[in-house]
Amino acid sequence: MLNERLLKQIEFIKEIDNVKYIQRKTKLFNSDRNENDAEHSWHLALMVLVLTEHSNQPIDVLKVLKMVLIHDIVEIDARDTFIYDTQKSHSNTEEERLAANRIFGMLPKEQADEFIAIWEEFEAGETHEAKFARAMDRLAPLLQNTSNNGGTWQEFGVKYSKVYEKKSVIKEGSDTIWNFAEGLINESVEIGILKK
Amino acid sequence: MLNERLLKQIEFIKEIDNVKYIQRKTKLFNSDRNENDAEHSWHLALMVLVLTEHSNQPIDVLKVLKMVLIHDIVEIDARDTFIYDTQKSHSNTEEERLAANRIFGMLPKEQADEFIAIWEEFEAGETHEAKFARAMDRLAPLLQNTSNNGGTWQEFGVKYSKVYEKKSVIKEGSDTIWNFAEGLINESVEIGILKK
Repeated sequence: MLNERLLKQIEFIKEIDNVKYIQRKTKLFNSDRNENDAEHSWHLALMVLVLTEHSNQPIDVLKVLKMVLIHDIVEIDARDTFIYDTQKSHSNTEEERLAANRIFGMLPKEQADEFIAIWEEFEAGETHEAKFARAMDRLAPLLQNTSNNGGTWQEFGVKYSKVYEKKSVIKEGSDTIWNFAEGLINESVEIGILKK
Repeated sequence: MLNERLLKQIEFIKEIDNVKYIQRKTKLFNSDRNENDAEHSWHLALMVLVLTEHSNQPIDVLKVLKMVLIHDIVEIDARDTFIYDTQKSHSNTEEERLAANRIFGMLPKEQADEFIAIWEEFEAGETHEAKFARAMDRLAPLLQNTSNNGGTWQEFGVKYSKVYEKKSVIKEGSDTIWNFAEGLINESVEIGILKK
């Protein structure tokens, strides 16, 4: 007996294997090895599970998990854009929207609609859930760069003011985590792995 | 202001980066590249999100997600054991229990207790949530092996009867998915990538 819904879902599951090939600029902790989007998304999901209590507002944890688990799937088509890239906007490009429609569109209609809506909510960054998910997405590379003697900041000559600006969105998700993150940024300047 | 809970949680988040280095026997889809535990766990989480409707019983999706996201963290200390290994039991070893206590024990007490309980529930495989999570864990390598001309079955000479036995636990989580999986196994025999 053929189950049309299941077959569509299986095709989607095969397609997203490609997320494992998308290399980020960021390296693993204390490492020279680039992280890929699947590893990154898994790590964010664990951070959500562990850090929820620090959210400024009560959040729907299941929705935040969905956000971080799917947020980079569009990069199968649109590729990873470096957050400090000055030529190309990091997100919300037309390319990413087309990718969302193609890839999530492999699923049965109402699932595709749900995934696209969650991805859009994450990108818009306006709900409590999106703010917390985005805080995790900014915190992870901060932890990685500080473990790697400055990591991408050193490699691409990114300055303190730019880092501070990008990371300060953490505050919208969690004052407690921002307090910690701000300390890490200042400490990075003091020890010379981030330039003013 | 020091936040002791947050500092413990951050140490845990750094520690589990090691999950990205644990190589599984299974390869990515249509690929020669081994999958690591972080990629595998991320993929299972997506499978849970997409396939929940096929569960035999109503399930708490958030709990199933937690199970698949954390189920391999113990392998940081205990390493991955091949499911068809005849020398060593695949799971529930004393080594894994010690690993769970050490690694989850880095978290604040009540979080550590929750994570250990969820990991134990997954390992025991008795609740509806654990049955569905384990079904996902068995389905993923079946899809991968069939995409790789038999993959680990061919590489390690695993026979149909063993595969059928291991995969049949999928039925406990979902009759619909088992129906599909059984078809894939039979087809693999027909096309010669799995030997009777």
